[in-house]
Amino acid sequence: MASISIDIERVQSFLNKHQTTDRSIVLVTSGGTTVPLEKNTVRFIDNFSTGQRGAASAEYFLERNYIVLFFHRISSILPYQRHIKTIFDESQTNQTYNHDQYHKHKDSLLLIPFQTVSDYLTGLEQLCGLLKIFNRAVLVYLCAAVSDYYIPNNELTEHKIPSGQNELIIHLKPVPKLLGFVKGKYAPEAFVVSFKLETDEKILEEKCLQSAEKYNQDIIVGNMLQTRTNQVQIYERMEKQWTTINRSEGNIEQKEIEFQIIDFLCDKHRIYRENLK
Amino acid sequence: MASISIDIERVQSFLNKHQTTDRSIVLVTSGGTTVPLEKNTVRFIDNFSTGQRGAASAEYFLERNYIVLFFHRISSILPYQRHIKTIFDESQTNQTYNHDQYHKHKDSLLLIPFQTVSDYLTGLEQLCGLLKIFNRAVLVYLCAAVSDYYIPNNELTEHKIPSGQNELIIHLKPVPKLLGFVKGKYAPEAFVVSFKLETDEKILEEKCLQSAEKYNQDIIVGNMLQTRTNQVQIYERMEKQWTTINRSEGNIEQKEIEFQIIDFLCDKHRIYRENLK
Repeated sequence: MASISIDIERVQSFLNKHQTTDRSIVLVTSGGTTVPLEKNTVRFIDNFSTGQRGAASAEYFLERNYIVLFFHRISSILPYQRHIKTIFDESQTNQTYNHDQYHKHKDSLLLIPFQTVSDYLTGLEQLCGLLKIFNRAVLVYLCAAVSDYYIPNNELTEHKIPSGQNELIIHLKPVPKLLGFVKGKYAPEAFVVSFKLETDEKILEEKCLQSAEKYNQDIIVGNMLQTRTNQVQIYERMEKQWTTINRSEGNIEQKEIEFQIIDFLCDKHRIYRENLK
Repeated sequence: MASISIDIERVQSFLNKHQTTDRSIVLVTSGGTTVPLEKNTVRFIDNFSTGQRGAASAEYFLERNYIVLFFHRISSILPYQRHIKTIFDESQTNQTYNHDQYHKHKDSLLLIPFQTVSDYLTGLEQLCGLLKIFNRAVLVYLCAAVSDYYIPNNELTEHKIPSGQNELIIHLKPVPKLLGFVKGKYAPEAFVVSFKLETDEKILEEKCLQSAEKYNQDIIVGNMLQTRTNQVQIYERMEKQWTTINRSEGNIEQKEIEFQIIDFLCDKHRIYRENLK
């Protein structure tokens, strides 16, 4: 489970192709980060996250004509690929539509993988650094499930933790919180959206408000583990305004809730861009 | 990240189809088990394991005319599917061969998923119980990466561990070692093969010998994390004999090392079956 560095030149050359455009650009982060428990990593702590939300969101951003950097946990769910049936699926579903959609949008999509929480934090800074010059055209959409606790590199054991002990005690330190730097330093003009996932409904709203206060995102999307595919609570920091989005069952083509979330966010981002034109 | 129970009836009806056969049957376990750190699981401990070894092995067992129960971590690598290119791969590789191979063998292959270490332990006992009546025709091939430590269910916190603490200390207990029960109780006549993965070459041999002594497998395959695709050390308990297999670069069709491992094991299993005929 080696860590993965970003190929900066590859990202830069992708962005260069779009340098003269007026299109909006979104950095989507997706999937869970890992925390190695050993240097030669056999064991690690992971976050529950299939990457479904990020992958679906990326597709809807592409439909809205965004350029998409998809910064994702390696082997998490990928845009378009997620619709392709496996060799075991013998249903007669037509796959042409998904292939066509991918080919229509592929020049606007760049896949950038990460593995560990350190990869993620380093990569986030690097990618925001490359996007900074696009100013308000940039939306940073943080739906990766970032680890809260980790073992700093200098405290990791070299080899596999031996089995057969009566108890294993793991001491974890808090992961440095870099979220505030996105707006505060890395890409100050970007429109920043982050997600907050909880399992206890009673504390969700409070957690979103605390997060907004600390990290200055423009928008926070609160969601519950159990109902995340059907409902989200959106908080706009500047407007101090809550909006609840329920997945509308009657929507055309039975699209996922991400369709409605992206619709909402693109409107807010458009207004944000226009405000400084 | 809900736990997954085995659909016993589905497995039983698959086995019923093969009840009158003289073919050998292998139970392949594959991929890493997870250890939930919370009841409503957001965080969990995972083992490094893509499932590549198990998936490749399953294919080679099918080529050797085995019936295969593939007990695997959900979303780990699957036999045949692993060769199918993604939507992003625009190479002109011909996929027909892989589809044909799958269709040739699919009636002999049953996919059975697991998620947590508890799912795995419960499932292993259940599956061995169903296979017991096939006596020496059964090979149990344990290459799943089973967690060593876990949090017992009654010690799990209900909700997500809060972030923002100065330190997080996790207390883990050893997972009950059921490996010895496979030969000792679940399926005493089965030919049992297990894997031992280490990162420190100096202790690999000793660990294999200790494991054989404790758990009575017929064969232990020792391998190093760094070189596992190119070399394994095989120990036969009864014969007290070591065999090293190096992946032969010149082998026809550039097959993986699993091709040679399965070749070796099928021969040993054939002898084991014949010894009691």
